Amino acid sequence: MSGNTFGTLFRITTWGESHGPAVGVVIDGCPAGLQLDETDIQKELDRRRPGQSDVTTQRKEEDRAEILSGVFSGKTTGAPISIIVKNKDVDSSKYEALRNTPRPGHADLTYQLKYGFRDWRGGGRSSARETIGRVAAGAVAKKLLDLKEVEVLGHVVELGGVRAKIVSIEEVRENTEKNPVRCADPDAAVEMEAIIRAARSEGDSIGGMVEVIGIGIPAGVGEPVFDKLSAELAKALMSIGAVKGVEIGAGFKSASMKGSQMNDVITIRNEKITTLTNNAGGILGGISDGEPIVLRIAVKPTPSISHEQHTVDTSKMQDTKIKIHGRHDPSIPPRIVPVAEAMMALVLVDMMMRGGFINPSTIE
Amino acid sequence: MSGNTFGTLFRITTWGESHGPAVGVVIDGCPAGLQLDETDIQKELDRRRPGQSDVTTQRKEEDRAEILSGVFSGKTTGAPISIIVKNKDVDSSKYEALRNTPRPGHADLTYQLKYGFRDWRGGGRSSARETIGRVAAGAVAKKLLDLKEVEVLGHVVELGGVRAKIVSIEEVRENTEKNPVRCADPDAAVEMEAIIRAARSEGDSIGGMVEVIGIGIPAGVGEPVFDKLSAELAKALMSIGAVKGVEIGAGFKSASMKGSQMNDVITIRNEKITTLTNNAGGILGGISDGEPIVLRIAVKPTPSISHEQHTVDTSKMQDTKIKIHGRHDPSIPPRIVPVAEAMMALVLVDMMMRGGFINPSTIE
Amino acid sequence: MSGNTFGTLFRITTWGESHGPAVGVVIDGCPAGLQLDETDIQKELDRRRPGQSDVTTQRKEEDRAEILSGVFSGKTTGAPISIIVKNKDVDSSKYEALRNTPRPGHADLTYQLKYGFRDWRGGGRSSARETIGRVAAGAVAKKLLDLKEVEVLGHVVELGGVRAKIVSIEEVRENTEKNPVRCADPDAAVEMEAIIRAARSEGDSIGGMVEVIGIGIPAGVGEPVFDKLSAELAKALMSIGAVKGVEIGAGFKSASMKGSQMNDVITIRNEKITTLTNNAGGILGGISDGEPIVLRIAVKPTPSISHEQHTVDTSKMQDTKIKIHGRHDPSIPPRIVPVAEAMMALVLVDMMMRGGFINPSTIE
Amino acid sequence: MSGNTFGTLFRITTWGESHGPAVGVVIDGCPAGLQLDETDIQKELDRRRPGQSDVTTQRKEEDRAEILSGVFSGKTTGAPISIIVKNKDVDSSKYEALRNTPRPGHADLTYQLKYGFRDWRGGGRSSARETIGRVAAGAVAKKLLDLKEVEVLGHVVELGGVRAKIVSIEEVRENTEKNPVRCADPDAAVEMEAIIRAARSEGDSIGGMVEVIGIGIPAGVGEPVFDKLSAELAKALMSIGAVKGVEIGAGFKSASMKGSQMNDVITIRNEKITTLTNNAGGILGGISDGEPIVLRIAVKPTPSISHEQHTVDTSKMQDTKIKIHGRHDPSIPPRIVPVAEAMMALVLVDMMMRGGFINPSTIE
Repeated sequence: MSGNTFGTLFRITTWGESHGPAVGVVIDGCPAGLQLDETDIQKELDRRRPGQSDVTTQRKEEDRAEILSGVFSGKTTGAPISIIVKNKDVDSSKYEALRNTPRPGHADLTYQLKYGFRDWRGGGRSSARETIGRVAAGAVAKKLLDLKEVEVLGHVVELGGVRAKIVSIEEVRENTEKNPVRCADPDAAVEMEAIIRAARSEGDSIGGMVEVIGIGIPAGVGEPVFDKLSAELAKALMSIGAVKGVEIGAGFKSASMKGSQMNDVITIRNEKITTLTNNAGGILGGISDGEPIVLRIAVKPTPSISHEQHTVDTSKMQDTKIKIHGRHDPSIPPRIVPVAEAMMALVLVDMMMRGGFINPSTIE
Repeated sequence: MSGNTFGTLFRITTWGESHGPAVGVVIDGCPAGLQLDETDIQKELDRRRPGQSDVTTQRKEEDRAEILSGVFSGKTTGAPISIIVKNKDVDSSKYEALRNTPRPGHADLTYQLKYGFRDWRGGGRSSARETIGRVAAGAVAKKLLDLKEVEVLGHVVELGGVRAKIVSIEEVRENTEKNPVRCADPDAAVEMEAIIRAARSEGDSIGGMVEVIGIGIPAGVGEPVFDKLSAELAKALMSIGAVKGVEIGAGFKSASMKGSQMNDVITIRNEKITTLTNNAGGILGGISDGEPIVLRIAVKPTPSISHEQHTVDTSKMQDTKIKIHGRHDPSIPPRIVPVAEAMMALVLVDMMMRGGFINPSTIE
Repeated sequence: MSGNTFGTLFRITTWGESHGPAVGVVIDGCPAGLQLDETDIQKELDRRRPGQSDVTTQRKEEDRAEILSGVFSGKTTGAPISIIVKNKDVDSSKYEALRNTPRPGHADLTYQLKYGFRDWRGGGRSSARETIGRVAAGAVAKKLLDLKEVEVLGHVVELGGVRAKIVSIEEVRENTEKNPVRCADPDAAVEMEAIIRAARSEGDSIGGMVEVIGIGIPAGVGEPVFDKLSAELAKALMSIGAVKGVEIGAGFKSASMKGSQMNDVITIRNEKITTLTNNAGGILGGISDGEPIVLRIAVKPTPSISHEQHTVDTSKMQDTKIKIHGRHDPSIPPRIVPVAEAMMALVLVDMMMRGGFINPSTIE
Repeated sequence: MSGNTFGTLFRITTWGESHGPAVGVVIDGCPAGLQLDETDIQKELDRRRPGQSDVTTQRKEEDRAEILSGVFSGKTTGAPISIIVKNKDVDSSKYEALRNTPRPGHADLTYQLKYGFRDWRGGGRSSARETIGRVAAGAVAKKLLDLKEVEVLGHVVELGGVRAKIVSIEEVRENTEKNPVRCADPDAAVEMEAIIRAARSEGDSIGGMVEVIGIGIPAGVGEPVFDKLSAELAKALMSIGAVKGVEIGAGFKSASMKGSQMNDVITIRNEKITTLTNNAGGILGGISDGEPIVLRIAVKPTPSISHEQHTVDTSKMQDTKIKIHGRHDPSIPPRIVPVAEAMMALVLVDMMMRGGFINPSTIE
């Protein structure tokens, strides 16, 4: 188990390298009877796709999803769903020069040290193309959640030091996809876009923060004590390439709060138990409480920058300098939004199955 | 799998309730030949134990560890190690009044909603006593790490808004255990202690931040892509009761950094590849790079406060008010330090086994 | 994961050595709300207990089960259930002489070679006392199955060459527990008992065959393709110490059958799809078909015999001879019946949970 | 986890239907540095392929393996290896008539009952084409075993009532692939071939028994107590479609043996601990003892026969009769040999990794 499988009951296995013939995913554990076709997958892949706008990488990939198994007459059969996306616009020429010089901030060095050998073409397995499998599987997870009236929404809340103002769930739903940075605050979006353009023109890159919200999750999802819903979400989100932090609800702010400020008052509203505030982020003791699940992730700036950088030549074991060419996103947060949503959706489906909220065999 | 097992090759299963007869852990996957006796466990349990000082809860528990299996002639045999700690100072009288009124910020409500029924005595399974099993197993993990010259150190870096100054690893090692708040900056420690006392006298509680450092970890530990070392650590730490956030290396700060600031320069020092800075926190692409692993967790304020609080009576489905009595820590970070260390140690041993760095059968 | 955990959703972890202070099991994944007390466990442990009759070992153990967690007010809470049984009648004196001379047919040699070191007292972890945890957990599984009207019955069908005649399920239910060999054919039982006595008086031991039947299992249990119900059962049963073979339905007889003989005719009876015969043993394509599940296991003769035997002295690496003293069962099949039932019950509960037939959170 | 993944550290996930566009497997956990190309896979697929001789099905499939990931410059990289085989000779016309009439002895009925819906084309997921992924992954496992000088050999030992004489390992190695029934006893092979032809001409089918031998396995492989090497092998082999029984060493014969006959004498030969006989089949207490591992499986007759058979029409819930057309193997054992070898190879690699015998990260 080298770690390319995620989930317990709704379980995905991804494969593929940036410059290999294809990337893909096998989903095992999707119940039978779910209506599914390639357009369901494509819709989400198109949100992740490179070249969507001038704030993303210029690699040209259509990222066409093909379903090779597990679907018959437009419905899932309960058998594993294999989805494949062919790599088309592969250009390894820029990478050959870097085969012995690990790029700072990338996984080049650690893959080399771990495996004694690495596929240096376009980052190989550690490329962001690896997330195609996550997004494709997440699209299936979202269809299952939809049947349970659960929705997952992501948006950029900070980028290059600009913080979006706090917005309602409704605004996230309405505004996020209307601008290329995926920020639900239109004014902040304009500023963020400018920051990305500036970073690109300086040959630099810029970090940011993404919030993901899960809406409609019933109370009772999550397994104490190690497989808390919060713990599974933390793993899922931290497993995305550039993520360096995960917080839930009040998160790091809670470190300077008092109990009397942090505790959410429990009350009855419309004959249902609810809380007045949501500092808990929808999770208490690792189990969902029925409020929206709210988490935020810190996304580091893209390590590929066009500045000259100091590194080593591993073949000669001496210091050297490199300049990275090739096509890169100057800022990852806008494109990480669908990936982060996918990871939350995958966790929710899996944990809802584990808790008995979704039947693992068939859509009833 | 209700989630009481943690780890893949070095695997622990914890059990027990706050007011039941005992709590414990079974460790499966400890190699044979490790010298182990109860004092090894006790040393760590004593750091977690209640009643260590006046800044912790006044429940009196000796927390004596008994090893019931897996050790013969002072050495582990490769068989599962069962460790049990009896609960002695149990007093459920204060909890009976709260059986139908979930305490805000606690897991009472979510356990009730998930299971339709709960052990209301002292928080039952969701009590902090659950962490005894983690710390006992962590003590075994630390012994294994010690053989590989890997060390795990935790310390409080922020509490009630007071930030410790940045200190060296040496200072963490020397200073942390010298004050009851486990802060490596002695001046900040004094302030933090005062803050805790103030919170207690106000019947309130206070949050904080803990840093955990792993030293001496070889490059190459961690499994791409889902079981990144960072992802496994995030899950492990987020699974601790009061933790609301986890960050690695530059963490949330990276969200406002540029690539040219974030990337750690790679260089040769003493014929070894190293980095000049450690914004990565020792992990690139989910794999250790040989630098110290540095992570921080946000710890929320203890939800048990003695203020009157609004909640609901679940038997009548109406709003009500409660006052919580009983014995509680006014601030969790000092006592969470050994728990957080234990979780990092457990992840490191497990991932080092998964990567072939520790033989799973015997100590060679 | 040294392999002391069994199951995916209903998951048990056993621990303990023959001559250590205790043996036990932790059950993780039992739904909340199940009525459970120690007598439920004891009933099954008493069937496994040594010293039941003169055809079993004369070690005197009461095997008293204590529940240490997971049960509150007579019902399971959803938290892990820890069950412990203290070892009382421990006498390691007979084993000291054998510490360097592995007993033929036992695990002494392989534990020594694997771990480089072993607990030689009474077989240590490889002792049949290890099965106490299985039977205790199986008792809980049986209670869950009972709610679904599923029953598991085991009986000895062959011993020392004597084959029981083919009997109805009703006869198995009525007759098995009436004789010390647990054979549902009373005439064969008398012969088998005589054979065991003869083997004991010769200082020898004798093998046999046990059949286990699962009744009332709904169609649809089992997960293709690797986690077929048949495959999970095969693993479960083969994991019992002395078992050397597992067959389902027609089993090894099917190797010399024709398709026209083997195929079970499918028909409608009482408006339900059923089969006229049951050569499939209730499983087709790894999934239950609604007919009784029928499997048989081959149980080898107890390796502990009092004849002089050739072996090696591992400390001197030379050939030697040993005579085994101590207390042993001359024939294992009668006492393996409750263990084999437990293993089938554990698989059925786990696979019924995996398939959505039992809610993993609560007894509704 | 619907069960399409096998293994703990060396882990495979298979996917694909008989009449879908392709079938395939993803291997996760293959160490980096293994020389691997498509001819390695093809060699084993050719042994499994339909249409090898007139005793197998006449479906024409080249079964060309394509490696889509995880291999770079002729060597594995540590990343998942995705292998795909396109289905070419698909003809679903014969199956349409059977969409509501489950074929006796097949999984049609149980898939229908479990999923409420099924891919009726050529058996869908329950087709023997599912084993292509097993054999492809097994080819990779065999290459890893080869580096450790471990060999896996399968041969038909019984078919249609004809038993092969007992042969040496050398004869198995030399003779098995020389005849279309894969029997190491050339005389028996002739008889078996005649039996298969007779069964085909009668429109019937015939069962048999296959033996699989593992040679060169070091002592110490296998994890007590549930993940015994024997238990993992039992699961692996029983998970193959037509297998109804698994036995190890003396197997079912041990049920009528005495301890004094069954126990293998332990002795020193060439300064190495060995046993004079191998009734244990190379496994004691679930751990390999250094002797060859020997197991046998019972293979039922192909359920597809051309006789008229009684079954039900599930759309009308009434009895009916069917005749199966299409292309089928009259006897499975010859073609199951490479599948059974693959399953043993997969278990051995996985358990050798779990025991520390194979480094999971790199080929050193």
